[in-house]
Amino acid sequence: MSDPAVQVVKEIPPKAADLSAWYTAVCLKAELVSYSPVRGCVVLRPNGFGLWENLQKHLDARFKATGHENAYFPLLIPESLLMKEAEHVEGFAPEVAWVTHGGQEELTERLAIRPTSEVIIGTMYAQWVESYRDLPILINQWANVVRWEKATRPFLRTMEFLWQEGHTAHASAEEAREETLRMLDVYRDFAENVAAVPVYAGMKSANERFPGAVETFSIEALMPDGKALQSATSHDLGQNFARAYDIKFTDVDQQIKYAYTTSWGMSWRMLGAMIMAHGDDRGLRIPPKMAPVEAVFVPIVRSNDERAVAVCRELAATLGEAGFRVRVDARDQQPGWKYSEWEMKGVPIRIEIGPRDVDAGTAVVVRRDRAKGDPQQKQSVSIEMLPRILPALLDDIQRTLFKEAKAFLESHTLPASSRDEFYEMCRARAGMIDIPWCNLPQCEADVKAQTGATTRVMRELAGAGAKCVACGEPAKVNAYFAQSY
Amino acid sequence: MSDPAVQVVKEIPPKAADLSAWYTAVCLKAELVSYSPVRGCVVLRPNGFGLWENLQKHLDARFKATGHENAYFPLLIPESLLMKEAEHVEGFAPEVAWVTHGGQEELTERLAIRPTSEVIIGTMYAQWVESYRDLPILINQWANVVRWEKATRPFLRTMEFLWQEGHTAHASAEEAREETLRMLDVYRDFAENVAAVPVYAGMKSANERFPGAVETFSIEALMPDGKALQSATSHDLGQNFARAYDIKFTDVDQQIKYAYTTSWGMSWRMLGAMIMAHGDDRGLRIPPKMAPVEAVFVPIVRSNDERAVAVCRELAATLGEAGFRVRVDARDQQPGWKYSEWEMKGVPIRIEIGPRDVDAGTAVVVRRDRAKGDPQQKQSVSIEMLPRILPALLDDIQRTLFKEAKAFLESHTLPASSRDEFYEMCRARAGMIDIPWCNLPQCEADVKAQTGATTRVMRELAGAGAKCVACGEPAKVNAYFAQSY
Repeated sequence: MSDPAVQVVKEIPPKAADLSAWYTAVCLKAELVSYSPVRGCVVLRPNGFGLWENLQKHLDARFKATGHENAYFPLLIPESLLMKEAEHVEGFAPEVAWVTHGGQEELTERLAIRPTSEVIIGTMYAQWVESYRDLPILINQWANVVRWEKATRPFLRTMEFLWQEGHTAHASAEEAREETLRMLDVYRDFAENVAAVPVYAGMKSANERFPGAVETFSIEALMPDGKALQSATSHDLGQNFARAYDIKFTDVDQQIKYAYTTSWGMSWRMLGAMIMAHGDDRGLRIPPKMAPVEAVFVPIVRSNDERAVAVCRELAATLGEAGFRVRVDARDQQPGWKYSEWEMKGVPIRIEIGPRDVDAGTAVVVRRDRAKGDPQQKQSVSIEMLPRILPALLDDIQRTLFKEAKAFLESHTLPASSRDEFYEMCRARAGMIDIPWCNLPQCEADVKAQTGATTRVMRELAGAGAKCVACGEPAKVNAYFAQSY
Repeated sequence: MSDPAVQVVKEIPPKAADLSAWYTAVCLKAELVSYSPVRGCVVLRPNGFGLWENLQKHLDARFKATGHENAYFPLLIPESLLMKEAEHVEGFAPEVAWVTHGGQEELTERLAIRPTSEVIIGTMYAQWVESYRDLPILINQWANVVRWEKATRPFLRTMEFLWQEGHTAHASAEEAREETLRMLDVYRDFAENVAAVPVYAGMKSANERFPGAVETFSIEALMPDGKALQSATSHDLGQNFARAYDIKFTDVDQQIKYAYTTSWGMSWRMLGAMIMAHGDDRGLRIPPKMAPVEAVFVPIVRSNDERAVAVCRELAATLGEAGFRVRVDARDQQPGWKYSEWEMKGVPIRIEIGPRDVDAGTAVVVRRDRAKGDPQQKQSVSIEMLPRILPALLDDIQRTLFKEAKAFLESHTLPASSRDEFYEMCRARAGMIDIPWCNLPQCEADVKAQTGATTRVMRELAGAGAKCVACGEPAKVNAYFAQSY
């Protein structure tokens, strides 16, 4: 085949056959990322950074609406500071990149590149907090972090990644727990209503807890291969970090007390979940709220009739002023080639205008979320109606992508009635396996050793008196089990 | 004195007496930054980060309006890559922080924490560019960088700092030069029209060039102590980096050529320039466009009459919906204490409402840019008029701050007629000393050795046939000399 459109598509393997190969191919072909000469690190190219900017915009607005402010803390952490919280050190030491030289000089104390910032932020909070009047402190940081890592999978597993980390300090355990759950719900809301990725939100088991936390909560999405993807975490740190870093305050009752702290983070991993959840064999399908370009105009030029280019430019300018994110693709390439490229990039709406459309005052509007041949994929509309049609269309695409993903999650959330069935479903990656569970570390370790699955999140026990499906001990909670990324 | 208002103010030394002590005190007292336990690194607290967010917002909009996109490149650069551009290595090697260990493992090759990203970005551009159709590449990155540094002065001199770095690649030398000058003008426009800091923009001398550049341009502000502060740079890199990192393309004429590249950056240093230029003995004076809070409401509660609090909250909600950045300070503190605190923080407008104002439907509006006792500092206005008065008032404060700084720059831009006078003015930090200059490295070295001053930027020679005031050789350009930060 010499048709370039077909060539581009051919380079992506079918999603159903090999999700992993499809995923890597689409991340590269849609120019979201490039591999770099730095082991474990990718470059986030403009198409990928556009997704990150939209994640930032929506999440940052939610942080500010819940009273948080942004700040920035140092990248480098002296080794002696890192060592103060024992569990935390043990958890992170194997992943730390160490700076040992500055210029020609060897340092007397090594500096860690932050794998996360509890340590440096806790140290500063200890300086800033004196009285209950100084609490709560509600701060977020957008930052890069480094965790030593040999594998490289765009967004999912890289040595350096971009994220946000919220760090708060409170006067009571109740307030800290409320904050932890509030931010968990902000993440759920963002995942479902912006990234269109349905998730289960809940408490993690002790095995899956953040090093140094009292409780860890997370949101968990289900990928098309039946593996779960942890998309954000929110930690109730109790007084553990306050004790280690000496965050004390004089309370209303004049007593000096340790503060209660929380931390919570979402990284560019969320983009990986979004890509895998929605993409198809033609490439990305980006939910409109996350799309750097909501609609692309493709003018069709025939036998030197270039009027469509001017019409597209004019329409794009009008829509741009009205707040839509649009682009005109007037490059000297075949329309079919352009269609494939923009489908690959996942732009929600394509608007084709040719000479006959110019005569008729119409445009062909094509939805990226619908399959080829679906009668709702294309419609011819009056050009004048475009500004009125687009918002409803974008909204419908957003909802359709969520609905499809939600249907997948629901149809792949499955009970198991016996130990054998449960183990088999875990091994087969049947989805989120939902069982009454004992919440015992040994049971979880057995399941993991024999099936590769772990608890994703837990919730209140559905029926009193139930036995753990995995081991037969009395059940304490309901838990979703799955293999995970 | 036990008046807490006076106490706060007393902690800042007078600006005129000791600019450096004033500067450090105001940065700390206004809670822009905290010193951290990491040598050379500061924490950017929410008040300081709010300034950075406004810088980002205004600058990023200008980058996008000139066709640039954002991306993100790795923090760590393998030593062998860094070594490819000889001048660049020589310039930056003494300032590099080196990562030598990952987890327990010693690395076979050291990794530099980026002091700037020409190297890694050039390497990627070499992969991305094949044909003239792939050019220009217009990319910007918002990032942290590290340059080994023992001194710590908030915003002006820190080991880690936040900045943006633009990196572009072009098919011709002319296009690259145009880009270099376009971005220089974006910086000038931002400095003058957003940060209200007047600058001289122009070419640097060979001594002051970026390591590896063909030409460096900069914007230079003048601080109240007569020292210049370089606030942003824009570099025409010619083909130097393209040759070192192999950025080649097939041109229209089918010839394979090296691309022409540029880079340009502004850091949080710009915030330091803004703080020093505008502040006074009461603290910061933030230009409205940069102010995280444009107007603060201070309700005055007397003998349990708390109606003012509700009125302030309602007005703030209305103004907030109209797009103003406002806050209500309803803390349990004396009004005078609050006034001093918000003056320290530099909020452009304070709105005082007490019981009598509530009865009369009025508010007292106080401008931060005016001195105490200035008849224009305070006015009583009808509450209903506030939404209509505020935009003009904010605009006038923005222009007043710029006009004052501009008058200072102009009155401190001085000619020198003889070598002795020139040397003396340089030593005395008289301001921007403007002379016809030979543009010879030896002359510049002599001036620097004997006075501490350097050329800041050069411009076209004002009068033909003039002699260099510093050394008597034929003048080639006019140059501004000053000691600098």
